[in-house]
Amino acid sequence: MKINWNYPTSMWVGENRVEDISKACKQLEISNPVFVTDKDLINLDMTNKILINLKKEFNHLAVFSNFSGNPFGENVEDGVKSYNQSKCDGVIAFGGGSAIDVGKAIAFMCGQKRPIWDFEDIGDYWTRADSSKISNIIAIPTTAGTGSETGRASAIINKESGIKKIIFHPKILPSIVILDPALTIDLSPRLTAATGMDALAHNLEAFCAPGFHPMADGIALEGIRLIKKSLNEVFKNGQNLDARLDMLAASTMGSTAFQKGLGAIHSLSHPVNAQFNVHHGLSNAIFMPYVLTFNKKEISNKIISICDYIGIEKSFENFIKWIMDLRQELNIPHKLSDIIDENKIDLDMLSKMAFDDPSTNGNPKKLDINHIKTMYEHSISGNLF
Amino acid sequence: MKINWNYPTSMWVGENRVEDISKACKQLEISNPVFVTDKDLINLDMTNKILINLKKEFNHLAVFSNFSGNPFGENVEDGVKSYNQSKCDGVIAFGGGSAIDVGKAIAFMCGQKRPIWDFEDIGDYWTRADSSKISNIIAIPTTAGTGSETGRASAIINKESGIKKIIFHPKILPSIVILDPALTIDLSPRLTAATGMDALAHNLEAFCAPGFHPMADGIALEGIRLIKKSLNEVFKNGQNLDARLDMLAASTMGSTAFQKGLGAIHSLSHPVNAQFNVHHGLSNAIFMPYVLTFNKKEISNKIISICDYIGIEKSFENFIKWIMDLRQELNIPHKLSDIIDENKIDLDMLSKMAFDDPSTNGNPKKLDINHIKTMYEHSISGNLF
Repeated sequence: MKINWNYPTSMWVGENRVEDISKACKQLEISNPVFVTDKDLINLDMTNKILINLKKEFNHLAVFSNFSGNPFGENVEDGVKSYNQSKCDGVIAFGGGSAIDVGKAIAFMCGQKRPIWDFEDIGDYWTRADSSKISNIIAIPTTAGTGSETGRASAIINKESGIKKIIFHPKILPSIVILDPALTIDLSPRLTAATGMDALAHNLEAFCAPGFHPMADGIALEGIRLIKKSLNEVFKNGQNLDARLDMLAASTMGSTAFQKGLGAIHSLSHPVNAQFNVHHGLSNAIFMPYVLTFNKKEISNKIISICDYIGIEKSFENFIKWIMDLRQELNIPHKLSDIIDENKIDLDMLSKMAFDDPSTNGNPKKLDINHIKTMYEHSISGNLF
Repeated sequence: MKINWNYPTSMWVGENRVEDISKACKQLEISNPVFVTDKDLINLDMTNKILINLKKEFNHLAVFSNFSGNPFGENVEDGVKSYNQSKCDGVIAFGGGSAIDVGKAIAFMCGQKRPIWDFEDIGDYWTRADSSKISNIIAIPTTAGTGSETGRASAIINKESGIKKIIFHPKILPSIVILDPALTIDLSPRLTAATGMDALAHNLEAFCAPGFHPMADGIALEGIRLIKKSLNEVFKNGQNLDARLDMLAASTMGSTAFQKGLGAIHSLSHPVNAQFNVHHGLSNAIFMPYVLTFNKKEISNKIISICDYIGIEKSFENFIKWIMDLRQELNIPHKLSDIIDENKIDLDMLSKMAFDDPSTNGNPKKLDINHIKTMYEHSISGNLF
């Protein structure tokens, strides 16, 4: 199967479409790309094979991979330095959310004069950027979770404050995305689970966010259906290419849909990711049932309306039961305190950070800091609302 | 309410957003636009008011409106001549499907050397175009049906052959779309019904078309839900702005979704539109139940899967009953022979034309000419399959 989709950007979908990287460079008139990937991926045979093929196409192929999960502003700075030294004219971002976020941030920052933090996703900060200096990006995800490949933001941690900042510009939406399920079949069950739950969190929070954005609603609903159909399957049988493609699609759909808004699952997650270096998908999965049950009054009708379509007997409780069962099948711990030493958690600080997170505004129930603290407390005691 | 959506293109949504036309021109660096609308709309107070405001913003405002429904290639030629004479640098396309299609075609053809028919939507014909010469388009629909504002094609009739041709180029997707429900409240119930059924046909055929395009599926499903919720309401109460916005959204969603494919409803319609100057939405509405029941075996499971979400008791028959009831409530005739003199219908010719229509490929059941002829026959006898 070889399909091209046209929104939210050009998407080249199907097995072995990764072979089309140089065709994508040609189409975008990139003649000197940098290949951005992370420390772990650069050592895989899969990556090596792609690099060998690319080196046949390009006289000089710059590679930047000096970073790992939850990347820092300094990583982007290093990448920009390397990009400008090699006089690159485009980015091939290959990997999970971190690699794609770093690749996008390099394409963005290579021509800007202000520091990256000036472009945080607040109001119209993005208009401060010189948008003529942003390079083209080709994004190739190797995990199915963040959907950063169809997003217009990068999540980068500010080392000084320890806060994960969302850096936004409409032009860092990659121009071409390659969705090749063959790149995801070797992903470990553990990462398959965490990233898949991240995709579910995106689709679910976008669907439940208030506001009129029916395209986002439809995309999110279909994304939830695909995850219900295939996440458990890819966890048990990673070689199933059809199910892997379902998850890649659901991941891109989540990040497409969440332009409508996110919610407290993400607000609670971001501080934990930044403070304890916990995988974003894992913390989303942990917080999911606490936040959903906390929001019950506001979201119950919406959730019940989709049950039949995604194959659940119609009730809010059955939907929560599905989430709880899925987490268990995927070996995801139930409590925050199962993965972080309870004594190291400063609830007041986390709650303050979570409250200030931009996702807080999208939560269906209007939140104050105490609400957030209560949700954290439940995620430690393990009691749903 | 004032919302901006970002896919499939920039969409400015909400009441009175039409006041933002000059802001949109500024954003796209259009300093000398042509305002394209049709013969009927140009005489409305609503249009006049917009023109008066625009003339305050632009020293010289070119206007082209010398065409009506189901436009011909010659209309586009006239528009291009006027565009180039006035040295325009962008198009404001204002109106129903015809006005927006003509506006898009003018923006496309103003810099091309080949005749428009060389760019029919076949294979990669569009690559014959000099894409650097295509002007920016701002599209403002005043009907909720074709969704041409989010499409990458124009439907233009070739007078010589009498065939409605689909002219395609990815760059004739308007750069900014303004969805303002206030512009649609004076649409007559008759046109509200026909255009609304057109939007339904788009969403429904896209949803049922084979192929893996889950974003299109989700968008189409949500589009169907909005139409189920609001088409009857806008027909009875045209002043309901919320329902009008639902229909505008559903219309853009239909044309966004149908990149996945259409089907026999459209194949059967196009020849009838071109030969008998019948409104496209009206013929779609007439053919809808015949085509759906003809495709029953292929689409039944899919249709049943969405019933609960859109508020219909789960069965294929109930879904067809909804379509039949809706048509009746909207005063749409049941048979093709209710609107065209049966003796004037050359079934063999129509069937040949319908078979050659590009939509035929997207039909869930693989079609030959006899299938098409049979469907036409049923639409004359009035018997569903």
